[in-house]
Amino acid sequence: MIDITLPDGSVKPFENNATPMDVAKSISEGLARNVISASFNGTTVETHTPLTTDGALVLYTWNDKEGKKAFWHSSAHVLAQALEELYPGVKLSIGPAIENGFYYDVDLGEQTISDKDFKTIEDKMLEIARGKYDFSLRSVSKTDALSLYKSQDNEYKVELIENLEDGTITFCDHSTFTDLCRGGHIPNTSIIKAVKIMSVAGAYWRGDENNKQLTRVYGISFPKQKELTEYLHLLEEAKKRDHRKLGRELELFTFSAKVGQGLPLWLPKGAALRERLEDFLKKAQKKAGYQMVVTPHIGQKELYVTSGHYEKYGADSFQPILTPNEGEEFLLKPMNCPHHCEIYNAKPFSYKELPIRYAEFGTVYRYEQSGELHGLTRVRGFTQDDAHIFCTPDQLDKEFKDVIDLVLYVFGSLGFENFKAQVSLRDPNTPEKYIGSDANWEKAEAAILNAAIDKGLDYVVETGEAAFYGPKLDFMVKDALGRNWQLGTIQVDYNLPERFDLTYKGSDNELHRPVMIHRAPFGSMERFVAILLEHTGGNFPLWLMPTQAIVLSISEKYEKYAEKVLNVLENNEIRALADNRNETIGKKIREAEMAKIPYMIIVGEQEESKNMITVRQHGGEDLGMISAIDFTEVVEKEVKKTLKTFKQKK
Amino acid sequence: MIDITLPDGSVKPFENNATPMDVAKSISEGLARNVISASFNGTTVETHTPLTTDGALVLYTWNDKEGKKAFWHSSAHVLAQALEELYPGVKLSIGPAIENGFYYDVDLGEQTISDKDFKTIEDKMLEIARGKYDFSLRSVSKTDALSLYKSQDNEYKVELIENLEDGTITFCDHSTFTDLCRGGHIPNTSIIKAVKIMSVAGAYWRGDENNKQLTRVYGISFPKQKELTEYLHLLEEAKKRDHRKLGRELELFTFSAKVGQGLPLWLPKGAALRERLEDFLKKAQKKAGYQMVVTPHIGQKELYVTSGHYEKYGADSFQPILTPNEGEEFLLKPMNCPHHCEIYNAKPFSYKELPIRYAEFGTVYRYEQSGELHGLTRVRGFTQDDAHIFCTPDQLDKEFKDVIDLVLYVFGSLGFENFKAQVSLRDPNTPEKYIGSDANWEKAEAAILNAAIDKGLDYVVETGEAAFYGPKLDFMVKDALGRNWQLGTIQVDYNLPERFDLTYKGSDNELHRPVMIHRAPFGSMERFVAILLEHTGGNFPLWLMPTQAIVLSISEKYEKYAEKVLNVLENNEIRALADNRNETIGKKIREAEMAKIPYMIIVGEQEESKNMITVRQHGGEDLGMISAIDFTEVVEKEVKKTLKTFKQKK
Repeated sequence: MIDITLPDGSVKPFENNATPMDVAKSISEGLARNVISASFNGTTVETHTPLTTDGALVLYTWNDKEGKKAFWHSSAHVLAQALEELYPGVKLSIGPAIENGFYYDVDLGEQTISDKDFKTIEDKMLEIARGKYDFSLRSVSKTDALSLYKSQDNEYKVELIENLEDGTITFCDHSTFTDLCRGGHIPNTSIIKAVKIMSVAGAYWRGDENNKQLTRVYGISFPKQKELTEYLHLLEEAKKRDHRKLGRELELFTFSAKVGQGLPLWLPKGAALRERLEDFLKKAQKKAGYQMVVTPHIGQKELYVTSGHYEKYGADSFQPILTPNEGEEFLLKPMNCPHHCEIYNAKPFSYKELPIRYAEFGTVYRYEQSGELHGLTRVRGFTQDDAHIFCTPDQLDKEFKDVIDLVLYVFGSLGFENFKAQVSLRDPNTPEKYIGSDANWEKAEAAILNAAIDKGLDYVVETGEAAFYGPKLDFMVKDALGRNWQLGTIQVDYNLPERFDLTYKGSDNELHRPVMIHRAPFGSMERFVAILLEHTGGNFPLWLMPTQAIVLSISEKYEKYAEKVLNVLENNEIRALADNRNETIGKKIREAEMAKIPYMIIVGEQEESKNMITVRQHGGEDLGMISAIDFTEVVEKEVKKTLKTFKQKK
Repeated sequence: MIDITLPDGSVKPFENNATPMDVAKSISEGLARNVISASFNGTTVETHTPLTTDGALVLYTWNDKEGKKAFWHSSAHVLAQALEELYPGVKLSIGPAIENGFYYDVDLGEQTISDKDFKTIEDKMLEIARGKYDFSLRSVSKTDALSLYKSQDNEYKVELIENLEDGTITFCDHSTFTDLCRGGHIPNTSIIKAVKIMSVAGAYWRGDENNKQLTRVYGISFPKQKELTEYLHLLEEAKKRDHRKLGRELELFTFSAKVGQGLPLWLPKGAALRERLEDFLKKAQKKAGYQMVVTPHIGQKELYVTSGHYEKYGADSFQPILTPNEGEEFLLKPMNCPHHCEIYNAKPFSYKELPIRYAEFGTVYRYEQSGELHGLTRVRGFTQDDAHIFCTPDQLDKEFKDVIDLVLYVFGSLGFENFKAQVSLRDPNTPEKYIGSDANWEKAEAAILNAAIDKGLDYVVETGEAAFYGPKLDFMVKDALGRNWQLGTIQVDYNLPERFDLTYKGSDNELHRPVMIHRAPFGSMERFVAILLEHTGGNFPLWLMPTQAIVLSISEKYEKYAEKVLNVLENNEIRALADNRNETIGKKIREAEMAKIPYMIIVGEQEESKNMITVRQHGGEDLGMISAIDFTEVVEKEVKKTLKTFKQKK
């Protein structure tokens, strides 16, 4: 008998040679149906691998990352088999699972694969899958392994095997197909119910452009057809919502080759959007007791040597700025914290004056390789909604809770309803790796956990994931397409107060070190706007829309009335435009729809004579004819649905 | 007879050998009494110099810059005579008039001058002045001149004379005193009625530190004692209002040696002030049809090569920022215009869409030598309230007028009541020095002059003072101490549209070049705040004050009531604080006065029981006991006195 420990900590005895699937069955038939892979004592095993020692077993289903990995890895085998059958003489190289699906790099010789062939490959894969072939792993000797691939004239597998450390070499068989493989498969091919070949691309063998170019075939597979359909729909949606595309269409931002890549230029509509977001946060921050400061975008190299940023960013980032004489050296600031520390240091503080909360929309610059740049999500200059809280260790608890309130307020006002938190603590076994006293770490970690519980967060704890300078809490937000984004980090810092020799006078009249909290609910204006664009598809919450309503006159005859209506809207703080061009009302509506303007106000003869307006919502719904004043109330009500006033909880 | 042309263009005949004073007398006795110097055909002459040819004569009084120069130059002679009498053996070197007063550099041998001696020198100078000695100029030969100073063993004057080009050498005599001198004196010493020795300092002969260090004696003199008193009072006031001192006292900004000199850090109160100013201008600009944009603080070197700024600022400014690889070179932006041109270029424009007005509070960086840095007025990084208008040549007229309206609105709202304008036009004799067509220059110059007249500006025209790329209008503002500051430049630009190949499609369907207007009513936030501090002494217009009112509780017993009052104020958009510390009301009032808070709200037993507040104004005036709501109306009324709503004039 062997003792198997399950993830919930329970220990169960099993017969020697019991398989993970046996364990699953012993728990429930339902689980057994869904288990597709497993790990034993931290190592991937097949679901039918006999277990021969005591150990910890984890069973994975499609819903686990590890389950998906086994599913797609196994699908890559099926793809390879299909390619062998369809393209005689094809030589396989490697075929791993990736974040979404899998690929296989193959040498097709003189043959080629194009879009037109995808359906044939998919059909062949499904035909194989339906055969319900078990995946089974077997050990082979290096000699046998080499001889198989040499007989196939496959120089790629030969090279792979030759480079393997002597040890166990395993092959995986299913149906008539065999591949060099480390293991980690689903039980059999029939679980693969839906398959899509996504694309083909060239890929150099081993990523080296001196090697032969192979053909990379990308695919994805699912246990249900419905899931594939949803995935493809999601991809379509994501393409439509690509923030680079929307940013161009909505005229929010642009890039200029002359200004430089990765340096966004915010167009009027984008700048207005950004300002509205900033004003929104400023207002809440003011209520939460933050004070705005303004600091320069450069600092002497010495400043960043003190802060440690020079050591961290120096070599890989924008290089120092020299001056014509006087031998000074400046750096573009990669972070705002050193400047805020210097502001804190500008005068002495007593414990009675803490906490001090300095906020700044601070633009920082970090060099990224041009290949890494991507729209507004990876840029070389970005504006952080930064703030630093300087408090006593005893105040950390309340400050942390207050910051969480603020972050949740931001998420709520912007329509992010699904989020999880991750609490990163230090590894208690290696206290020497961390700066700050044990007592302070314990206080800070307790404060974070306490705050997470108190605020009812759905959170996970990651021990050992803290930075060397302090524990933190990160939020992962799920967008409308189900993608996760990290937003709203709250980070405790014991390091900078040390490095900048920050102090406050305690009630004991002695000098003490304050604790610092870094936090940025948006992260950066650039990245946040990108995420918001992809989350909402450009249909922002009404309070945020650059243009909330547009008055469309049916003909030039009603221009005066349109201006009168516009005036009423503007006097009621509605951001509105008028379109009095000599164009058809149909064209005006189409363009307003394209511009995603939430309300179209149509004015013509009937409206003018009755002193009313006809209101049409973005997407087509008709609100009928109402007075301009009644419309302002509709807008106000709609705004208040998402945008509440921030109140700091006591 | 000779013909004398006067500044008003009139020509009068005079006897040959008539003096400027004769001409003054022929105009009026009053003028003759006030004339203290003159220029003939552009050259300085004495008031008693006989005129022997036809020519243009300008007569100067104390109110003219040239009159003051002659007055102070003559006073330097009197100072030198006083020093000769008081310090036997003193050797004179040079003694010019300066912006405010005059100085004389002297070699005192073993003797010294200290503060204690100032009164004696002043008395001696006044004694000489009362002698009513005429200043009279006479020609001497180089030999005679040298022999005089050699006999006095005065190596300085000898060196000066030896270096003189052979030509007329003149001496000026008054009383028993003689000095080497080019001329330009007041008629006699008795006009000098008030004298003050300001300071002594060391000064190397000819400014070369390898030479002997002389003693520089600074003085100032006036035609009336009252003027001296006023001047000294002004100096005292200026010292009190030094923006560096007020910035520290009011906790508006600071500097950090680690961040770097000339790079201000805006403290919370300063950042709030700055934001208020920005919001104020943003609001007006929005009404005037500007659109905000946001651009990065760096750009590729290529961008500034295109704009011409690299050629202008390159070598003397912050040096290029290199990247770890990819060989890119960036520059800190010295101006925002290139970025705005690139935004304009991001899409095609039709004449129907112009004018386009892009505004940005854009922070720019320009290297200044550390010795040139001064508080917020000379810094290395500053935020311009920048905007660029792109319009058709025909729209220039209206756009220019609109910008003037905006600038005047800014001045009015901030309490700058005295200002003049200077219109800088091109030199019509050298059209080749300027870029842009003759027709466009004529249009632009006419537009500026037309706007200046139309807006009723007090302006002067300076021909030949235009930049090569366009004519401009500058405002000179007089502050409360009578000092002049240049604020609010409006500049036409034909150059950047050319360099960036900016176009719009005209009604003829052809591409045309837009005209650009650069404008910045504040100039920069840093310099403007400095000027505003010195103009107002920190007592800003009420609408701008970071804290408009402070609630002072008489004792901790009234803290709750104080908070209630504070709430009323805050709900009525008054920026208020509460001071509920356990301190005496006297101390609280003193500190609020120091912080220049306009209204102090005192609350104690009487106030709480009556649900009223006692209001005291900054400076001591008592507004008595009123209700909190009535007080909010007092504030609102006061705010509206200076801060009107901006309306673009049609």
